[in-house]
Amino acid sequence: MSDLQPPSSRTRIRRRMYASYDVASVNAILDAGLLANIGYVIDGAPYVTPTIYLREADQLYWHGAAASRLFRDGRSKLPVCVTVSQVDGLVLARSGFSHSLLYRSVMAFGHAEPVAGAAEKRRVLDLFIDRLYPRRSSELRPISDQEMAATSIMTMRIEEASAKIASPAARGGIGVIDKEADYAAAIWAGVIPIRTVTGEPRPDARLNVDPAPPANLALYREGSRLDEILVVLQQGDA
Amino acid sequence: MSDLQPPSSRTRIRRRMYASYDVASVNAILDAGLLANIGYVIDGAPYVTPTIYLREADQLYWHGAAASRLFRDGRSKLPVCVTVSQVDGLVLARSGFSHSLLYRSVMAFGHAEPVAGAAEKRRVLDLFIDRLYPRRSSELRPISDQEMAATSIMTMRIEEASAKIASPAARGGIGVIDKEADYAAAIWAGVIPIRTVTGEPRPDARLNVDPAPPANLALYREGSRLDEILVVLQQGDA
Repeated sequence: MSDLQPPSSRTRIRRRMYASYDVASVNAILDAGLLANIGYVIDGAPYVTPTIYLREADQLYWHGAAASRLFRDGRSKLPVCVTVSQVDGLVLARSGFSHSLLYRSVMAFGHAEPVAGAAEKRRVLDLFIDRLYPRRSSELRPISDQEMAATSIMTMRIEEASAKIASPAARGGIGVIDKEADYAAAIWAGVIPIRTVTGEPRPDARLNVDPAPPANLALYREGSRLDEILVVLQQGDA
Repeated sequence: MSDLQPPSSRTRIRRRMYASYDVASVNAILDAGLLANIGYVIDGAPYVTPTIYLREADQLYWHGAAASRLFRDGRSKLPVCVTVSQVDGLVLARSGFSHSLLYRSVMAFGHAEPVAGAAEKRRVLDLFIDRLYPRRSSELRPISDQEMAATSIMTMRIEEASAKIASPAARGGIGVIDKEADYAAAIWAGVIPIRTVTGEPRPDARLNVDPAPPANLALYREGSRLDEILVVLQQGDA
Protein backbone atom coordinates (compact mmCIF):
# COMPACT_ATOMS: atom_id res chain seq x y z
CA MET A 1 0.00 0.00 0.00
CA SER A 2 1.98 3.00 -1.23
CA ASP A 3 1.13 6.63 -0.71
CA LEU A 4 0.46 7.35 -4.35
CA GLN A 5 -1.15 4.11 -5.37
CA PRO A 6 -3.30 4.55 -8.49
CA PRO A 7 -6.75 3.06 -7.91
CA SER A 8 -7.54 -0.08 -9.90
CA SER A 9 -11.04 -0.78 -11.21
CA ARG A 10 -11.97 -2.58 -8.01
CA THR A 11 -11.14 0.32 -5.70
CA ARG A 12 -11.97 3.26 -7.97
CA ILE A 13 -14.77 5.25 -6.34
CA ARG A 14 -17.42 6.72 -8.61
CA ARG A 15 -18.30 9.74 -6.49
CA ARG A 16 -14.90 11.36 -6.68
CA MET A 17 -15.80 14.00 -4.09
CA TYR A 18 -15.71 11.20 -1.48
CA ALA A 19 -12.68 9.26 -2.64
CA SER A 20 -9.29 8.94 -0.96
CA TYR A 21 -6.59 6.47 -1.82
CA ASP A 22 -3.84 7.69 0.49
CA VAL A 23 -2.63 5.60 3.40
CA ALA A 24 -3.40 8.25 6.03
CA SER A 25 -7.09 8.46 5.09
CA VAL A 26 -7.45 4.69 4.97
CA ASN A 27 -5.68 4.19 8.29
CA ALA A 28 -7.66 6.94 10.03
CA ILE A 29 -10.88 5.04 9.29
CA LEU A 30 -9.42 1.63 10.10
CA ASP A 31 -8.12 2.92 13.43
CA ALA A 32 -11.49 4.42 14.41
CA GLY A 33 -13.38 1.16 13.85
CA LEU A 34 -14.03 -1.90 16.00
CA LEU A 35 -15.73 -4.31 13.61
CA ALA A 36 -14.71 -5.31 10.10
CA ASN A 37 -16.68 -7.30 7.57
CA ILE A 38 -14.51 -9.90 5.87
CA GLY A 39 -15.72 -11.08 2.47
CA TYR A 40 -14.40 -14.29 0.90
CA VAL A 41 -15.42 -16.95 -1.58
CA ILE A 42 -15.99 -20.64 -0.92
CA ASP A 43 -16.88 -22.92 -3.82
CA GLY A 44 -17.76 -19.85 -5.87
CA ALA A 45 -20.23 -18.49 -3.29
CA PRO A 46 -19.87 -15.26 -1.27
CA TYR A 47 -19.48 -15.22 2.52
CA VAL A 48 -19.17 -12.25 4.84
CA THR A 49 -18.02 -12.49 8.45
CA PRO A 50 -18.30 -9.54 10.83
CA THR A 51 -15.46 -9.64 13.33
CA ILE A 52 -13.24 -7.58 15.58
CA TYR A 53 -9.93 -6.69 13.94
CA LEU A 54 -6.75 -4.74 14.44
CA ARG A 55 -4.30 -2.91 12.22
CA GLU A 56 -0.53 -2.94 12.62
CA ALA A 57 1.27 -0.96 9.88
CA ASP A 58 -0.21 -2.32 6.61
CA GLN A 59 -1.25 -5.61 8.16
CA LEU A 60 -4.79 -6.48 9.37
CA TYR A 61 -5.55 -9.23 11.90
CA TRP A 62 -8.84 -10.78 12.93
CA HIS A 63 -10.09 -13.69 14.98
CA GLY A 64 -10.74 -16.54 12.61
CA ALA A 65 -13.30 -18.79 14.24
CA ALA A 66 -14.40 -19.81 10.76
CA ALA A 67 -10.84 -20.12 9.54
CA SER A 68 -10.65 -23.89 9.60
CA ARG A 69 -13.49 -23.98 7.10
CA LEU A 70 -11.55 -21.63 4.81
CA PHE A 71 -8.35 -23.61 4.80
CA ARG A 72 -9.50 -27.19 4.91
CA ASP A 73 -9.05 -27.51 1.15
CA GLY A 74 -5.32 -27.01 1.59
CA ARG A 75 -4.97 -23.63 -0.07
CA SER A 76 -2.44 -21.34 1.50
CA LYS A 77 -3.90 -17.87 0.93
CA LEU A 78 -7.46 -16.71 0.49
CA PRO A 79 -8.45 -13.57 -1.45
CA VAL A 80 -10.51 -11.34 0.83
CA CYS A 81 -12.26 -8.00 0.72
CA VAL A 82 -12.44 -6.20 4.08
CA THR A 83 -14.76 -3.29 4.84
CA VAL A 84 -14.87 -1.02 7.87
CA SER A 85 -17.66 1.55 8.05
CA GLN A 86 -19.01 4.21 10.32
CA VAL A 87 -22.24 6.15 9.87
CA ASP A 88 -21.95 9.73 11.15
CA GLY A 89 -25.34 11.11 10.23
CA LEU A 90 -28.60 10.97 8.29
CA VAL A 91 -28.96 13.68 5.65
CA LEU A 92 -32.51 14.88 4.95
CA ALA A 93 -32.63 16.88 1.73
CA ARG A 94 -35.43 18.69 -0.12
CA SER A 95 -35.85 15.87 -2.65
CA GLY A 96 -35.95 12.12 -2.15
CA PHE A 97 -33.03 11.69 -4.54
CA SER A 98 -30.72 13.90 -2.46
CA HIS A 99 -31.29 12.09 0.83
CA SER A 100 -28.06 10.54 1.94
CA LEU A 101 -25.79 9.51 4.78
CA LEU A 102 -22.68 10.96 6.33
CA TYR A 103 -20.24 8.09 6.64
CA ARG A 104 -16.66 6.93 6.51
CA SER A 105 -15.75 3.59 5.01
CA VAL A 106 -12.75 1.64 3.82
CA MET A 107 -12.62 -1.23 1.36
CA ALA A 108 -9.35 -3.17 1.47
CA PHE A 109 -8.19 -6.11 -0.61
CA GLY A 110 -5.58 -8.71 0.18
CA HIS A 111 -4.87 -12.40 0.69
CA ALA A 112 -5.58 -13.83 4.12
CA GLU A 113 -3.69 -16.59 5.85
CA PRO A 114 -3.58 -17.95 9.41
CA VAL A 115 -0.96 -16.48 11.72
CA ALA A 116 1.57 -19.29 12.08
CA GLY A 117 4.04 -19.95 14.87
CA ALA A 118 3.23 -20.00 18.57
CA ALA A 119 5.31 -16.92 19.46
CA GLU A 120 3.78 -14.74 16.75
CA LYS A 121 0.29 -15.99 17.59
CA ARG A 122 0.80 -15.14 21.27
CA ARG A 123 2.10 -11.71 20.32
CA VAL A 124 -0.98 -10.94 18.20
CA LEU A 125 -3.40 -12.32 20.80
CA ASP A 126 -1.82 -10.03 23.39
CA LEU A 127 -2.02 -7.15 20.90
CA PHE A 128 -5.78 -7.72 20.57
CA ILE A 129 -6.12 -7.24 24.35
CA ASP A 130 -3.69 -4.34 24.67
CA ARG A 131 -5.09 -2.47 21.65
CA LEU A 132 -8.36 -1.98 23.58
CA TYR A 133 -7.05 -2.20 27.16
CA PRO A 134 -3.52 -0.77 27.46
CA ARG A 135 -1.01 -3.12 29.15
CA ARG A 136 -3.75 -5.51 30.26
CA SER A 137 -2.21 -8.63 28.68
CA SER A 138 0.69 -8.42 31.13
CA GLU A 139 -1.75 -8.59 34.05
CA LEU A 140 -3.47 -11.75 32.80
CA ARG A 141 -2.27 -15.33 33.22
CA PRO A 142 -0.50 -16.64 30.10
CA ILE A 143 -2.65 -18.17 27.39
CA SER A 144 -2.61 -21.97 27.80
CA ASP A 145 -1.52 -24.32 25.02
CA GLN A 146 -5.07 -25.64 24.82
CA GLU A 147 -6.43 -22.10 24.37
CA MET A 148 -3.78 -21.43 21.74
CA ALA A 149 -4.85 -24.48 19.80
CA ALA A 150 -8.51 -23.45 19.99
CA THR A 151 -7.81 -19.96 18.62
CA SER A 152 -7.05 -19.05 15.07
CA ILE A 153 -5.93 -15.60 13.97
CA MET A 154 -6.08 -14.55 10.37
CA THR A 155 -3.88 -11.89 8.84
CA MET A 156 -3.65 -10.04 5.56
CA ARG A 157 -1.39 -7.37 4.13
CA ILE A 158 -3.43 -4.49 2.69
CA GLU A 159 -2.53 -4.75 -0.99
CA GLU A 160 -5.00 -2.15 -2.22
CA ALA A 161 -7.50 0.05 -0.40
CA SER A 162 -9.81 2.98 -0.84
CA ALA A 163 -11.51 5.28 1.64
CA LYS A 164 -14.89 6.86 1.06
CA ILE A 165 -15.61 9.87 3.23
CA ALA A 166 -18.99 11.57 3.02
CA SER A 167 -18.37 14.23 5.64
CA PRO A 168 -19.72 17.76 6.03
CA ALA A 169 -16.28 18.95 4.90
CA ALA A 170 -16.52 16.89 1.70
CA ARG A 171 -20.13 17.91 1.05
CA GLY A 172 -20.09 21.53 2.28
CA GLY A 173 -22.10 23.22 5.04
CA ILE A 174 -23.53 20.69 7.50
CA GLY A 175 -23.74 18.10 4.73
CA VAL A 176 -27.04 18.82 2.94
CA ILE A 177 -26.74 19.18 -0.84
CA ASP A 178 -29.84 20.00 -2.88
CA LYS A 179 -30.36 20.85 -6.50
CA GLU A 180 -30.59 24.63 -6.75
CA ALA A 181 -34.24 24.58 -7.85
CA ASP A 182 -35.20 22.50 -4.79
CA TYR A 183 -34.04 25.07 -2.21
CA ALA A 184 -37.35 26.92 -2.68
CA ALA A 185 -39.31 23.94 -1.32
CA ALA A 186 -41.06 24.54 1.98
CA ILE A 187 -39.69 21.46 3.71
CA TRP A 188 -37.35 20.88 6.61
CA ALA A 189 -33.86 19.75 5.63
CA GLY A 190 -30.91 19.02 7.83
CA VAL A 191 -28.69 16.41 9.43
CA ILE A 192 -29.39 13.97 12.24
CA PRO A 193 -25.97 13.21 13.80
CA ILE A 194 -25.17 9.59 14.69
CA ARG A 195 -22.39 8.50 17.00
CA THR A 196 -21.35 5.35 18.81
CA VAL A 197 -20.55 5.88 22.47
CA THR A 198 -19.46 3.87 25.46
CA GLY A 199 -21.30 3.50 28.74
CA GLU A 200 -19.90 3.44 32.25
CA PRO A 201 -17.90 0.18 32.71
CA ARG A 202 -19.91 -2.37 34.72
CA PRO A 203 -17.98 -4.61 37.14
CA ASP A 204 -18.61 -8.36 37.16
CA ALA A 205 -20.44 -9.63 40.27
CA ARG A 206 -17.64 -12.01 41.30
CA LEU A 207 -14.75 -9.54 41.45
CA ASN A 208 -12.22 -9.84 44.25
CA VAL A 209 -10.65 -6.45 43.47
CA ASP A 210 -11.93 -2.87 43.68
CA PRO A 211 -15.09 -2.71 41.49
CA ALA A 212 -14.07 0.72 40.17
CA PRO A 213 -12.53 0.31 36.70
CA PRO A 214 -8.71 0.43 36.71
CA ALA A 215 -6.73 3.41 35.42
CA ASN A 216 -5.97 1.84 32.02
CA LEU A 217 -9.70 1.91 31.20
CA ALA A 218 -10.02 5.62 31.99
CA LEU A 219 -10.95 6.52 28.39
CA TYR A 220 -14.11 4.41 28.65
CA ARG A 221 -16.56 6.79 30.27
CA GLU A 222 -20.30 7.33 29.98
CA GLY A 223 -21.03 9.03 26.67
CA SER A 224 -17.47 9.02 25.25
CA ARG A 225 -17.21 8.50 21.49
CA LEU A 226 -15.89 5.03 20.70
CA ASP A 227 -14.22 6.11 17.43
CA GLU A 228 -12.23 8.78 19.26
CA ILE A 229 -11.22 6.36 22.03
CA LEU A 230 -10.02 3.80 19.48
CA VAL A 231 -7.89 6.36 17.64
CA VAL A 232 -6.23 7.52 20.88
CA LEU A 233 -5.57 3.90 21.90
CA GLN A 234 -4.14 3.06 18.46
CA GLN A 235 -1.72 5.99 18.80
CA GLY A 236 -0.56 4.52 22.10
CA ASP A 237 -1.19 7.70 24.05
CA ALA A 238 -3.49 6.21 26.69
CA MET B 1 -37.36 -18.51 5.22
CA SER B 2 -39.60 -20.72 7.37
CA ASP B 3 -39.94 -20.65 11.09
CA LEU B 4 -38.40 -24.06 11.60
CA GLN B 5 -35.79 -24.00 8.94
CA PRO B 6 -32.96 -26.44 9.68
CA PRO B 7 -29.61 -24.68 9.35
CA SER B 8 -27.47 -25.73 6.40
CA SER B 9 -23.69 -25.89 6.67
CA ARG B 10 -23.36 -22.26 5.60
CA THR B 11 -25.60 -20.86 8.32
CA ARG B 12 -24.93 -23.35 11.13
CA ILE B 13 -23.38 -21.49 14.05
CA ARG B 14 -20.67 -23.21 16.03
CA ARG B 15 -21.31 -21.55 19.37
CA ARG B 16 -24.79 -22.93 19.83
CA MET B 17 -25.47 -20.75 22.89
CA TYR B 18 -25.62 -17.76 20.51
CA ALA B 19 -27.51 -19.28 17.60
CA SER B 20 -31.03 -18.52 16.43
CA TYR B 21 -32.57 -19.59 13.15
CA ASP B 22 -36.14 -18.36 13.69
CA VAL B 23 -37.58 -15.51 11.66
CA ALA B 24 -38.39 -13.34 14.69
CA SER B 25 -34.78 -13.31 15.93
CA VAL B 26 -33.41 -12.60 12.47
CA ASN B 27 -35.93 -9.82 11.80
CA ALA B 28 -35.38 -8.19 15.20
CA ILE B 29 -31.71 -7.67 14.32
CA LEU B 30 -32.38 -6.63 10.73
CA ASP B 31 -34.95 -4.07 11.90
CA ALA B 32 -32.57 -2.55 14.47
CA GLY B 33 -29.81 -1.96 11.91
CA LEU B 34 -29.08 0.84 9.47
CA LEU B 35 -26.14 -0.49 7.46
CA ALA B 36 -25.72 -3.89 5.82
CA ASN B 37 -22.61 -5.37 4.27
CA ILE B 38 -23.38 -7.06 0.97
CA GLY B 39 -20.93 -9.73 -0.15
CA TYR B 40 -20.78 -10.94 -3.75
CA VAL B 41 -18.38 -12.51 -6.21
CA ILE B 42 -17.07 -11.01 -9.46
CA ASP B 43 -14.75 -13.08 -11.63
CA GLY B 44 -14.14 -15.37 -8.67
CA ALA B 45 -13.05 -12.53 -6.35
CA PRO B 46 -14.86 -11.35 -3.20
CA TYR B 47 -16.39 -7.88 -2.87
CA VAL B 48 -18.19 -6.35 0.10
CA THR B 49 -20.28 -3.19 -0.11
CA PRO B 50 -21.54 -1.42 3.01
CA THR B 51 -24.89 0.20 2.29
CA ILE B 52 -28.17 1.35 3.82
CA TYR B 53 -30.92 -1.26 3.46
CA LEU B 54 -34.50 -1.99 4.37
CA ARG B 55 -36.52 -5.10 5.10
CA GLU B 56 -40.09 -5.71 3.95
CA ALA B 57 -41.40 -9.16 4.95
CA ASP B 58 -38.68 -11.60 3.78
CA GLN B 59 -37.33 -9.21 1.15
CA LEU B 60 -34.26 -6.97 1.56
CA TYR B 61 -33.62 -3.85 -0.53
CA TRP B 62 -30.53 -1.70 -0.88
CA HIS B 63 -29.25 1.13 -3.01
CA GLY B 64 -27.18 -0.39 -5.76
CA ALA B 65 -24.71 2.25 -6.90
CA ALA B 66 -22.40 -0.57 -7.89
CA ALA B 67 -25.21 -2.58 -9.43
CA SER B 68 -24.38 -1.85 -13.04
CA ARG B 69 -20.97 -3.45 -12.50
CA LEU B 70 -22.66 -6.55 -11.11
CA PHE B 71 -25.04 -7.06 -13.97
CA ARG B 72 -23.02 -6.00 -16.98
CA ASP B 73 -22.22 -9.60 -17.81
CA GLY B 74 -25.90 -10.23 -18.47
CA ARG B 75 -26.61 -12.55 -15.59
CA SER B 76 -30.04 -12.17 -14.05
CA LYS B 77 -29.44 -12.99 -10.39
CA LEU B 78 -26.36 -12.69 -8.25
CA PRO B 79 -25.68 -14.86 -5.18
CA VAL B 80 -25.10 -12.60 -2.19
CA CYS B 81 -24.35 -12.89 1.52
CA VAL B 82 -25.69 -10.02 3.62
CA THR B 83 -24.58 -9.24 7.16
CA VAL B 84 -26.03 -6.79 9.68
CA SER B 85 -24.21 -6.38 13.00
CA GLN B 86 -24.39 -4.39 16.16
CA VAL B 87 -21.80 -4.34 18.94
CA ASP B 88 -23.40 -3.91 22.37
CA GLY B 89 -20.38 -4.16 24.62
CA LEU B 90 -16.77 -5.10 25.29
CA VAL B 91 -16.34 -8.04 27.66
CA LEU B 92 -13.22 -7.99 29.83
CA ALA B 93 -12.63 -11.39 31.39
CA ARG B 94 -9.99 -12.76 33.78
CA SER B 95 -8.07 -14.49 30.97
CA GLY B 96 -7.16 -13.25 27.51
CA PHE B 97 -8.94 -16.19 25.95
CA SER B 98 -12.29 -15.27 27.55
CA HIS B 99 -12.30 -11.66 26.37
CA SER B 100 -15.19 -11.16 24.04
CA LEU B 101 -17.87 -8.87 22.66
CA LEU B 102 -21.57 -8.50 23.24
CA TYR B 103 -23.12 -8.30 19.81
CA ARG B 104 -26.06 -9.15 17.60
CA SER B 105 -25.54 -10.16 14.00
CA VAL B 106 -27.41 -11.70 11.10
CA MET B 107 -25.99 -13.50 8.10
CA ALA B 108 -28.51 -13.89 5.26
CA PHE B 109 -28.15 -15.59 1.89
CA GLY B 110 -30.10 -15.02 -1.29
CA HIS B 111 -29.92 -14.01 -4.93
CA ALA B 112 -29.96 -10.29 -5.69
CA GLU B 113 -31.50 -8.61 -8.71
CA PRO B 114 -32.34 -5.02 -9.64
CA VAL B 115 -35.85 -3.83 -8.82
CA ALA B 116 -37.54 -3.61 -12.20
CA GLY B 117 -40.51 -1.53 -13.28
CA ALA B 118 -40.89 2.21 -12.70
CA ALA B 119 -43.87 1.90 -10.34
CA GLU B 120 -42.20 -0.66 -8.09
CA LYS B 121 -38.95 1.27 -8.10
CA ARG B 122 -40.78 4.47 -7.08
CA ARG B 123 -42.57 2.55 -4.33
CA VAL B 124 -39.30 1.23 -2.89
CA LEU B 125 -37.53 4.60 -3.15
CA ASP B 126 -40.39 6.17 -1.19
CA LEU B 127 -40.18 3.32 1.31
CA PHE B 128 -36.50 4.13 1.91
CA ILE B 129 -37.48 7.69 2.87
CA ASP B 130 -40.57 6.78 4.90
CA ARG B 131 -38.85 3.95 6.77
CA LEU B 132 -36.59 6.53 8.46
CA TYR B 133 -38.84 9.61 8.25
CA PRO B 134 -42.53 8.67 8.53
CA ARG B 135 -44.74 10.05 5.72
CA ARG B 136 -41.93 12.29 4.43
CA SER B 137 -42.03 11.01 0.82
CA SER B 138 -45.51 12.51 0.39
CA GLU B 139 -44.12 15.95 1.31
CA LEU B 140 -41.35 15.84 -1.29
CA ARG B 141 -41.65 16.60 -4.99
CA PRO B 142 -41.95 13.44 -7.11
CA ILE B 143 -38.72 11.75 -8.20
CA SER B 144 -37.89 12.86 -11.76
CA ASP B 145 -37.42 10.41 -14.61
CA GLN B 146 -33.76 11.41 -14.79
CA GLU B 147 -33.30 10.66 -11.07
CA MET B 148 -35.10 7.34 -11.52
CA ALA B 149 -32.70 6.40 -14.32
CA ALA B 150 -29.69 7.34 -12.18
CA THR B 151 -30.83 5.18 -9.24
CA SER B 152 -30.64 1.45 -9.00
CA ILE B 153 -32.24 -0.54 -6.22
CA MET B 154 -31.25 -4.12 -5.54
CA THR B 155 -33.50 -6.66 -3.90
CA MET B 156 -33.17 -10.17 -2.55
CA ARG B 157 -35.49 -12.65 -0.91
CA ILE B 158 -33.95 -14.03 2.29
CA GLU B 159 -33.56 -17.69 1.39
CA GLU B 160 -31.62 -18.70 4.46
CA ALA B 161 -30.49 -16.76 7.52
CA SER B 162 -29.01 -17.14 10.96
CA ALA B 163 -28.83 -14.79 13.93
CA LYS B 164 -25.98 -14.76 16.40
CA ILE B 165 -26.79 -13.10 19.70
CA ALA B 166 -24.07 -12.73 22.33
CA SER B 167 -26.17 -10.94 24.94
CA PRO B 168 -25.96 -10.89 28.72
CA ALA B 169 -29.08 -13.10 28.65
CA ALA B 170 -27.32 -15.65 26.42
CA ARG B 171 -24.10 -15.52 28.45
CA GLY B 172 -25.47 -15.06 31.99
CA GLY B 173 -24.94 -12.24 34.50
CA ILE B 174 -23.72 -9.07 32.83
CA GLY B 175 -22.00 -11.13 30.13
CA VAL B 176 -18.62 -12.09 31.63
CA ILE B 177 -17.84 -15.82 31.49
CA ASP B 178 -14.60 -17.09 32.99
CA LYS B 179 -13.21 -20.54 33.57
CA GLU B 180 -13.93 -21.46 37.17
CA ALA B 181 -10.24 -21.52 38.14
CA ASP B 182 -9.76 -17.97 36.83
CA TYR B 183 -12.30 -16.36 39.17
CA ALA B 184 -9.64 -16.28 41.88
CA ALA B 185 -7.48 -13.90 39.81
CA ALA B 186 -7.04 -10.41 41.28
CA ILE B 187 -8.01 -8.57 38.14
CA TRP B 188 -10.88 -6.31 37.18
CA ALA B 189 -13.47 -7.93 34.93
CA GLY B 190 -16.66 -6.49 33.55
CA VAL B 191 -18.48 -5.07 30.58
CA ILE B 192 -18.07 -1.74 28.80
CA PRO B 193 -21.45 -1.02 27.19
CA ILE B 194 -21.52 0.32 23.62
CA ARG B 195 -24.48 1.97 21.98
CA THR B 196 -25.17 4.03 18.87
CA VAL B 197 -27.18 7.17 19.52
CA THR B 198 -28.57 10.10 17.62
CA GLY B 199 -27.81 13.76 18.21
CA GLU B 200 -30.17 16.72 18.09
CA PRO B 201 -31.28 17.26 14.45
CA ARG B 202 -29.38 20.19 12.87
CA PRO B 203 -31.30 22.40 10.42
CA ASP B 204 -29.76 23.32 7.07
CA ALA B 205 -28.70 26.98 6.76
CA ARG B 206 -30.97 27.68 3.77
CA LEU B 207 -34.30 26.56 5.23
CA ASN B 208 -37.40 28.59 4.48
CA VAL B 209 -39.49 26.77 7.10
CA ASP B 210 -39.32 26.61 10.91
CA PRO B 211 -35.81 25.36 11.81
CA ALA B 212 -37.25 23.18 14.58
CA PRO B 213 -37.44 19.56 13.33
CA PRO B 214 -40.96 18.55 12.26
CA ALA B 215 -43.16 16.21 14.33
CA ASN B 216 -42.39 13.11 12.24
CA LEU B 217 -38.75 13.31 13.37
CA ALA B 218 -39.68 13.44 17.05
CA LEU B 219 -37.95 10.11 17.80
CA TYR B 220 -34.58 11.58 16.83
CA ARG B 221 -33.47 13.29 20.00
CA GLU B 222 -30.12 13.92 21.64
CA GLY B 223 -28.87 10.64 23.11
CA SER B 224 -31.68 8.37 21.85
CA ARG B 225 -30.60 4.85 20.87
CA LEU B 226 -30.64 4.44 17.09
CA ASP B 227 -31.44 0.71 17.23
CA GLU B 228 -34.53 1.38 19.33
CA ILE B 229 -35.70 4.21 17.05
CA LEU B 230 -35.31 1.98 13.98
CA VAL B 231 -37.37 -0.81 15.54
CA VAL B 232 -40.19 1.58 16.48
CA LEU B 233 -40.16 3.06 12.98
CA GLN B 234 -40.18 -0.40 11.36
CA GLN B 235 -43.25 -1.28 13.41
CA GLY B 236 -44.95 1.81 12.04
CA ASP B 237 -45.81 3.17 15.48
CA ALA B 238 -44.19 6.57 15.04
